[in-house]
Amino acid sequence: MEDSLFPRDTLAARHIAESAKPYSGDPALQDVLDWFRAQPNLEARFGQVIRQSIDEVLDGQRTGRFDIDELEKTEKTYLGTKVEIVTRSEFGLGHGQRMDYHIVGHDVDSKFTSGGNWTIPREADGHICLLTKANDHKAHYQVGLLRIRDEFLNAGKNRDGKRSISAAGRGAIHWIVENGQITQNILLSLPEVERTAIFNASAGYRGSGNGGQLRTNELFRRVQGKPVNRNTVLTVASQDDGPKRVRDARNHLRPEGIMILGHQSQHPRIARDLGLSVAEKGSWVAVRVAHADSSDATRKKTRISGQEYVAWRAGDTPVAAPESY
Amino acid sequence: MEDSLFPRDTLAARHIAESAKPYSGDPALQDVLDWFRAQPNLEARFGQVIRQSIDEVLDGQRTGRFDIDELEKTEKTYLGTKVEIVTRSEFGLGHGQRMDYHIVGHDVDSKFTSGGNWTIPREADGHICLLTKANDHKAHYQVGLLRIRDEFLNAGKNRDGKRSISAAGRGAIHWIVENGQITQNILLSLPEVERTAIFNASAGYRGSGNGGQLRTNELFRRVQGKPVNRNTVLTVASQDDGPKRVRDARNHLRPEGIMILGHQSQHPRIARDLGLSVAEKGSWVAVRVAHADSSDATRKKTRISGQEYVAWRAGDTPVAAPESY
Repeated sequence: MEDSLFPRDTLAARHIAESAKPYSGDPALQDVLDWFRAQPNLEARFGQVIRQSIDEVLDGQRTGRFDIDELEKTEKTYLGTKVEIVTRSEFGLGHGQRMDYHIVGHDVDSKFTSGGNWTIPREADGHICLLTKANDHKAHYQVGLLRIRDEFLNAGKNRDGKRSISAAGRGAIHWIVENGQITQNILLSLPEVERTAIFNASAGYRGSGNGGQLRTNELFRRVQGKPVNRNTVLTVASQDDGPKRVRDARNHLRPEGIMILGHQSQHPRIARDLGLSVAEKGSWVAVRVAHADSSDATRKKTRISGQEYVAWRAGDTPVAAPESY
Repeated sequence: MEDSLFPRDTLAARHIAESAKPYSGDPALQDVLDWFRAQPNLEARFGQVIRQSIDEVLDGQRTGRFDIDELEKTEKTYLGTKVEIVTRSEFGLGHGQRMDYHIVGHDVDSKFTSGGNWTIPREADGHICLLTKANDHKAHYQVGLLRIRDEFLNAGKNRDGKRSISAAGRGAIHWIVENGQITQNILLSLPEVERTAIFNASAGYRGSGNGGQLRTNELFRRVQGKPVNRNTVLTVASQDDGPKRVRDARNHLRPEGIMILGHQSQHPRIARDLGLSVAEKGSWVAVRVAHADSSDATRKKTRISGQEYVAWRAGDTPVAAPESY
């Protein structure tokens, strides 16, 4: 993968690509492949395009959904359009004459699937397709290029006359990213019992308006040591001010010894001291702490306002989290 | 329209509704109608639901689009789903057993059109539909209830077996909001020449990254005296920090005498002094000013840092806008 911030020499790029894979006999496809491979941070950016597209269509803040299996048919269809739009925007692509994109002089169509295969309409015959495939349950994605030919498609058509890509076709895909990672969908990854506890944290609550706070508190009680992003908080809280819910959760969870670390002030240092992931902007990592026990020098410690803390483990005396951090 | 903040007496509500319209012989539909009519700020909220839904599907920040006529077919279909989701969220509706919503014990389906008529699938037969219709060009919407019966549908079916609502059907709709206003889509309302000037303000610009600022500046040069919302700025700027673009536009446009008034500090007072709309949170009203001429006492004046200003008109001496306001 190329991550230079400067456009690189195209001939050199082609040479590298050729040495990695025998020349395909399709110079236009090769141009497009080279162009993508020359983009900086390619893998992370495609991963972000897919995470963002899925999260927008799930619309978790309004619907509480976190699993694309819950989408309606029209929404699943639209997800492909959203991936097309977000990809165009992320990579600054133009519109093609007959296909979705114009990339270094060539028409390229966008095809997305969240299932096992793509469905290819008749109109794509003979054209280069940017094939994107995402499995949110496995946090995995692939992006590649294929020029659609008859021998790359299965014989059976669906009722719209679309055909799926055959084993030979899949073998002929020129991968741009073959083993990409999507930022983990935290709610989807949790065991059912944990998820139910989070979403039911406000059940029976009869006050006005802060059931979302109770669910956010429960989220950070149950998800610790890994990053929780803004969208996850919005989905759990069903409210539009995620950061405010997190700030309030900090106060509510302090007596239980739980800290919620963001990307500001001394939070990254504390996370590093304790061996945790450092949260990016718009995400948080929760951790339950205990006072450092001087008898165990092997545990990672962090100093906050003159007091040493370790990540809590069974047997530690429960303490409150620091008053300010 | 009911705008009490408290639940009102249902029998009284039904009585009012009955006196306004002869009893329909459909108590379930009447229950749903009464429920909606009892919701506070009903008209503004439905207007906001539709504005928000259209803006999200246009995705102006990424696509530069402001006209639903530019949407693809899958996006137009999805717009109906988005309206359904945003309506459910805005009014806290549950999911029905077989239809989209559960409202005071009744199943209600959601049907949206941005065209002249709704298309009704076979499955809706005999059911209550919440019919929503929006015309963004006219900033107009309608919402009403109709129980689908054969005599309310036209004979012809489309290829999905769906039928449109007949004149008799349209006459039988129980309006919840018959003449609703959607917040004006500023870009759509502008003459083509103005719009082109705004979007082309960055043409030929070869710097890195602030073409969006040049377009935002041009927006506030050309749209004055009426509210411009965050989505309009994002669509013009194609960037994600709208408020920052507006703050910078204030500095860029100061030498031209243009002020951009938001909802904070003394901005609402200045807007009122000059007889302008006061911007709501997340929107702005631009105005070009001149020094107040003491010979014309009829012009509305505002005092900023000890200096009196009026809204500029032809013949006034150009001045810079105040340094701070």
